[in-house]
Amino acid sequence: MLQLDIHPTGRHFLQIPGPSPVPDRILRAMSLPTIDHRGPEFGTLGLKVLGGIKQIFKTKHPVAIYPASGTGAWEAALANTLSPGDHVLMYETGHFASLWQKMATRLGLSTEFLAWSGKDEQLPAAPSWRRGVQADLIEARLRKDTEKKIKAVCVVHNETSTGVTSDIASVRKAIDAAGHPALLMVDSISGLASADFRHDEWGVDVTISGSQKGLMLPPGISFNALSPRALEASKSAKLPRAFWAWDEIVEMNKDGYWPYTPNTNLLYGLSESLDMLLAEGLDNVFARHQRWAAGVRAAVDAWGLPIQCADPAVYSPVLTGVITPEGVDADALRRLIHQRFDLSLGTGLGKLKGRMFRMGHLGDSNDLTLVAMVAGVEMGMKLSGIKLAGSGVQAAMDHFASHAAAHAGLQKAA
Amino acid sequence: MLQLDIHPTGRHFLQIPGPSPVPDRILRAMSLPTIDHRGPEFGTLGLKVLGGIKQIFKTKHPVAIYPASGTGAWEAALANTLSPGDHVLMYETGHFASLWQKMATRLGLSTEFLAWSGKDEQLPAAPSWRRGVQADLIEARLRKDTEKKIKAVCVVHNETSTGVTSDIASVRKAIDAAGHPALLMVDSISGLASADFRHDEWGVDVTISGSQKGLMLPPGISFNALSPRALEASKSAKLPRAFWAWDEIVEMNKDGYWPYTPNTNLLYGLSESLDMLLAEGLDNVFARHQRWAAGVRAAVDAWGLPIQCADPAVYSPVLTGVITPEGVDADALRRLIHQRFDLSLGTGLGKLKGRMFRMGHLGDSNDLTLVAMVAGVEMGMKLSGIKLAGSGVQAAMDHFASHAAAHAGLQKAA
Amino acid sequence: MLQLDIHPTGRHFLQIPGPSPVPDRILRAMSLPTIDHRGPEFGTLGLKVLGGIKQIFKTKHPVAIYPASGTGAWEAALANTLSPGDHVLMYETGHFASLWQKMATRLGLSTEFLAWSGKDEQLPAAPSWRRGVQADLIEARLRKDTEKKIKAVCVVHNETSTGVTSDIASVRKAIDAAGHPALLMVDSISGLASADFRHDEWGVDVTISGSQKGLMLPPGISFNALSPRALEASKSAKLPRAFWAWDEIVEMNKDGYWPYTPNTNLLYGLSESLDMLLAEGLDNVFARHQRWAAGVRAAVDAWGLPIQCADPAVYSPVLTGVITPEGVDADALRRLIHQRFDLSLGTGLGKLKGRMFRMGHLGDSNDLTLVAMVAGVEMGMKLSGIKLAGSGVQAAMDHFASHAAAHAGLQKAA
Amino acid sequence: MLQLDIHPTGRHFLQIPGPSPVPDRILRAMSLPTIDHRGPEFGTLGLKVLGGIKQIFKTKHPVAIYPASGTGAWEAALANTLSPGDHVLMYETGHFASLWQKMATRLGLSTEFLAWSGKDEQLPAAPSWRRGVQADLIEARLRKDTEKKIKAVCVVHNETSTGVTSDIASVRKAIDAAGHPALLMVDSISGLASADFRHDEWGVDVTISGSQKGLMLPPGISFNALSPRALEASKSAKLPRAFWAWDEIVEMNKDGYWPYTPNTNLLYGLSESLDMLLAEGLDNVFARHQRWAAGVRAAVDAWGLPIQCADPAVYSPVLTGVITPEGVDADALRRLIHQRFDLSLGTGLGKLKGRMFRMGHLGDSNDLTLVAMVAGVEMGMKLSGIKLAGSGVQAAMDHFASHAAAHAGLQKAA
Repeated sequence: MLQLDIHPTGRHFLQIPGPSPVPDRILRAMSLPTIDHRGPEFGTLGLKVLGGIKQIFKTKHPVAIYPASGTGAWEAALANTLSPGDHVLMYETGHFASLWQKMATRLGLSTEFLAWSGKDEQLPAAPSWRRGVQADLIEARLRKDTEKKIKAVCVVHNETSTGVTSDIASVRKAIDAAGHPALLMVDSISGLASADFRHDEWGVDVTISGSQKGLMLPPGISFNALSPRALEASKSAKLPRAFWAWDEIVEMNKDGYWPYTPNTNLLYGLSESLDMLLAEGLDNVFARHQRWAAGVRAAVDAWGLPIQCADPAVYSPVLTGVITPEGVDADALRRLIHQRFDLSLGTGLGKLKGRMFRMGHLGDSNDLTLVAMVAGVEMGMKLSGIKLAGSGVQAAMDHFASHAAAHAGLQKAA
Repeated sequence: MLQLDIHPTGRHFLQIPGPSPVPDRILRAMSLPTIDHRGPEFGTLGLKVLGGIKQIFKTKHPVAIYPASGTGAWEAALANTLSPGDHVLMYETGHFASLWQKMATRLGLSTEFLAWSGKDEQLPAAPSWRRGVQADLIEARLRKDTEKKIKAVCVVHNETSTGVTSDIASVRKAIDAAGHPALLMVDSISGLASADFRHDEWGVDVTISGSQKGLMLPPGISFNALSPRALEASKSAKLPRAFWAWDEIVEMNKDGYWPYTPNTNLLYGLSESLDMLLAEGLDNVFARHQRWAAGVRAAVDAWGLPIQCADPAVYSPVLTGVITPEGVDADALRRLIHQRFDLSLGTGLGKLKGRMFRMGHLGDSNDLTLVAMVAGVEMGMKLSGIKLAGSGVQAAMDHFASHAAAHAGLQKAA
Repeated sequence: MLQLDIHPTGRHFLQIPGPSPVPDRILRAMSLPTIDHRGPEFGTLGLKVLGGIKQIFKTKHPVAIYPASGTGAWEAALANTLSPGDHVLMYETGHFASLWQKMATRLGLSTEFLAWSGKDEQLPAAPSWRRGVQADLIEARLRKDTEKKIKAVCVVHNETSTGVTSDIASVRKAIDAAGHPALLMVDSISGLASADFRHDEWGVDVTISGSQKGLMLPPGISFNALSPRALEASKSAKLPRAFWAWDEIVEMNKDGYWPYTPNTNLLYGLSESLDMLLAEGLDNVFARHQRWAAGVRAAVDAWGLPIQCADPAVYSPVLTGVITPEGVDADALRRLIHQRFDLSLGTGLGKLKGRMFRMGHLGDSNDLTLVAMVAGVEMGMKLSGIKLAGSGVQAAMDHFASHAAAHAGLQKAA
Repeated sequence: MLQLDIHPTGRHFLQIPGPSPVPDRILRAMSLPTIDHRGPEFGTLGLKVLGGIKQIFKTKHPVAIYPASGTGAWEAALANTLSPGDHVLMYETGHFASLWQKMATRLGLSTEFLAWSGKDEQLPAAPSWRRGVQADLIEARLRKDTEKKIKAVCVVHNETSTGVTSDIASVRKAIDAAGHPALLMVDSISGLASADFRHDEWGVDVTISGSQKGLMLPPGISFNALSPRALEASKSAKLPRAFWAWDEIVEMNKDGYWPYTPNTNLLYGLSESLDMLLAEGLDNVFARHQRWAAGVRAAVDAWGLPIQCADPAVYSPVLTGVITPEGVDADALRRLIHQRFDLSLGTGLGKLKGRMFRMGHLGDSNDLTLVAMVAGVEMGMKLSGIKLAGSGVQAAMDHFASHAAAHAGLQKAA
């Protein structure tokens, strides 16, 4: 048997911002025997998950479920709606926005990468990686595009590399204010089912998401939530596509099937995930993540370290990036914490490599797990010789003790 | 909990030609907690499965593992090696060859579809669906291509829709005999790890495969085994690609990682599958499938029904297609058998719809399971009023009783 | 990892008369994390299984659930109701009745072992092992006991060693007809949840059962279903007891807890088992077993071999014993079948060692699995040189094809 | 599906002193299909676990493995070695010692219950519940027993109700010093595989243990490790016994089988547990528990609360009892902590009800999990209005940061 943890005992603390810890219920559901993907039971499963996932995206329109991890769904969104050479306006919120832009270029699109151009003392190399999407910049750019050459505006909802959750409704307003027909495509891979998201109400044309974050599944499933305009655009889009093509998927999904082999066992997990999330209620899910994030940020504040996200209005409920002091190698710190305390943290990506680490607080977690995470980070920083202003653990405990969750278990206690 | 089987008790007989039954060891391995795909344990896992899968393909060159089901790997093979408008020679062995050809066209390639043009009394509509790839037709066509416009020859190793396993070595010989530089791309989605396959020795440039057949995993992982020539071709190929692009995958695979999130839990299953297959030995695996296939064919012969594959030289060790008598709706028969005997069979696809059914005999099976399958089919046919020449079950039993497997358990018995 | 099957692939056919195959749902439920056996969630679980198991026994009185395998529940029944030297009337139906009698003696009770004393040509050494309990013998004996020295009558409902299901109602009638106050204790370890059983209606005082048969669980849980008279008797019974003592268990069970640590994970399995059985309906469960048993007996008849049970009125729906021809070592046959066909059969026990084998047809099974079992036995017998009168497999298939189950799946097919 | 946790998300912190958290590897192993307990694969499993468990007890003599939870193994030890009316010297270390004494009385033995008679200000009602076994009291008592009426000395190694680990070697020395032939019986249900234990070296005659503590299994298996003297005593012991009888078990265990149905799936778990413990090495296992216990005690000291165990020489490495301030209902505190922080603690048992709680630190745990436990307790105490002298969490973190574990993962980090 492969050794999946180098530590002799205990449960690993998987506190990266995804894949998030997978609940036991889901792992057990996934391990049931594979069934015939053309048989009647599968149709029932298919219709259930296709219906349920719409509630998570808050949409009445089709959601394509891909048997592929999230990066594929980025490609799907572009390939189904655009033609070679089309001009796309993207926005640089961080590493994943950059990767998506790189992908768009690679697929033969003409990309333009907007970014906040202010100054940032702590991270002079990446000021726009500390803030959300600035809708006014988008609006201004679109107003200039009198020939409507821009075919799509692409933004990231929750930037997994930085811990910033942008205001998607404001982007839609900006597009509308500019009277521009561009499609709005949103990556909510790490936002969905953790941060508030409303595909229809916010006028998103394609929302991209994945299984391994708020949905609490292992990686391997990804999504495109569609709008009628996106479906219309797909009819004339010229980028070649087959596996990602919406047409056959949407058609066959009507009966709960797929044009090719879906990844059945992950769909068992999705079915279980939907049962769990819808039973809890999305509003409770979002409130839970906000409580957790506030507790973790209280710890970072107590340490006297800068939170990666510089704008409190767009703090992520999913993860918190922490900028390490000058001279500290954040990755060496992460390695020490992993080896000594059996805790995985997210690395600084791209422009942030070595300058920050990321603490995930999403999905199947709870208050004590997050206190443990904060404690592991705090011990690791002390062992690394980092001077801290105060006790982050105490701050987190103060937060969690004074902010109770609103759930059945607690009410019973009252 | 979703009802994955409408029958009240007992284990479902999943006898479609893939997904094949997943062994308990693999299901349990897949249900272990998800780990950090950037952590040190993952690197160990990655290197193990990347090394092991090469032994299955019998190649020394890289194998790209995709977190996507098999259809995606078809697209990957084309998109990495070809440019828009390139001419591709494909060969019609059945429904999956046809789907691949349709995909190639959809991706903007120019396709030419060779087929055996002889006459077939039993299936006049699809004579080439009863035979393997005719290498001489390919050689003749390539010889005519003096301008070397044909960039690739694409064939299916084991046609899952018909039960025909083509001679891939002969196709390589045909290409070489014609002195043609076309790449050889082979779909062995349902052949790998059940039927003899030798990527390097047979001179295949790209072999496509999937997880849910001989590897005994749920669907969700697919493969491209590469040759140096294929890698070279990918440098100048112009079809747009990102998720499927070999370059970043091959580069990052050197350390056991992927450029994007792999589907970790299915890789746990792959690790277990490799342990099982390599411990048994591929030659034993192939012999086991040949024994099974011969037993099932003995039953079909006893029934007096035509086997879909008309050429005994290319009988598939993976599945056996059975042509139903005129006037019998093969799908109605399949439904009755499923509902009455908890047994799933493969449907007749495309041109064969309603005219045949397919019995899978691959992966995690054994003699008695196959006798049960034959019994379920035989009872179903009798209940449907089909006249049979004799007892298929008796014929299968005679075969299995007189042909012992060569494995440890049996030797102990001696 | 331990090798739990010496065969390289496929699912083992576990056709012993218990432990029976455990459904995947139950195995998955059992693998959920262990909880605090003193916490509130456990109380909910405890009340659920304690309530559900009463429906299975068809009783309104307490059922003690032991975290111990079935043999312990035999001891519990005796130790809670009797005093050292008490005289007990037991009935020899087979090996398990004999073991129980041996245990009673070992515990310091005075035992009397009734048996049918007729002649049996096929098994002259054990004529009473081919028939059920003869209630008239019991009545006659009780009538003679004018001093009421007999404190209990102990019989086995379904004799797992022979395949005989005795008429328990007739035993109660016999006791009543004799006007005797003896307690009626019944071992239904292998009968419960497969063969009709009615604790209250049949006037049983203690019913003993276990988890690994009709309840489809692994071994490790056993039961004592009680009557008010049994509880009353326990107040004055003098045999020493602690672990098995009903008093504390019944008291603490009122809130869903146990006086000592219960085996939590098997109780998860029991909860799932109860959900499955009660959803199907006990009458359907019993009918399913009767259909199966009839099909298996049809095969034995076709072979021309004697069924162990000589009285068709008490054929067991759970298992069928087959007497092998003189000169055939039934255990050598079983070994060959196991090694060659991955099929486990029950051995001949005690007086029947080497003279018979047992085919289990209980719990989580289905028609095709039983046909496979019959086929494995038939092939094994032929390989052993046993002459058979005809095809048992054909007879079983004829039975199953003409006798449809009454369940949802089938009705859908209509 | 039963709701095994009233909290909506996250992993429950099961910090009772057993059942301890079960590792995923063990849960998965337990969920493999049940095999024939009379078949060849079972014999291999049986021999493996019977051999491995001897290494855990550090004995060369037989260990009886019961398919029953730990309380049964107490009864087994007494019933196999003693006769009705035999006089037994037991020692009151806490609630479990008291329950065992109560059981011995119930089984018809004459019991004498020694206890430390000093004064204790914090717990005047139970001074002996704060200290270990005083070997000198035992020696003095045995010296007085000139007629050798005392047949056995029974002590608890690790008192789960108090957190005291008695010095067993000293008890053997006391018996030998008194020149007394009494058997030494030791309950190490919660000590085995967490605290140092040496059955042979310490001259123990019967060691009783269970699965759900240091062995990290669910409850359901228990043990009697035997000495030649114990086996000799069993030949003449007169207490009735059958299920618990060593003779048949020891005899059949020679081939890896049991006289009755063992609980197969828990034995799969035991096999996995043995692999894990023996791979880590028992000395490392013990050192790990000592580090953990010291960290938890540092927290209790920082809080300024009394540790239940008043003698540092016998602090338990398995659990730590904490005496709550006068006027605080420890059980109300536990309930609040469970409901608010998803953390289960052990209750105060018997004489300690409401006066203390117990923190388990055993088995499949790690540093951060224990910090989380300490944090949960600390938050709960503050919410309950308990005044604490200082931060227990900080003290625990200081301990764990300065005391590194000696294992592979850490060494890699160096």
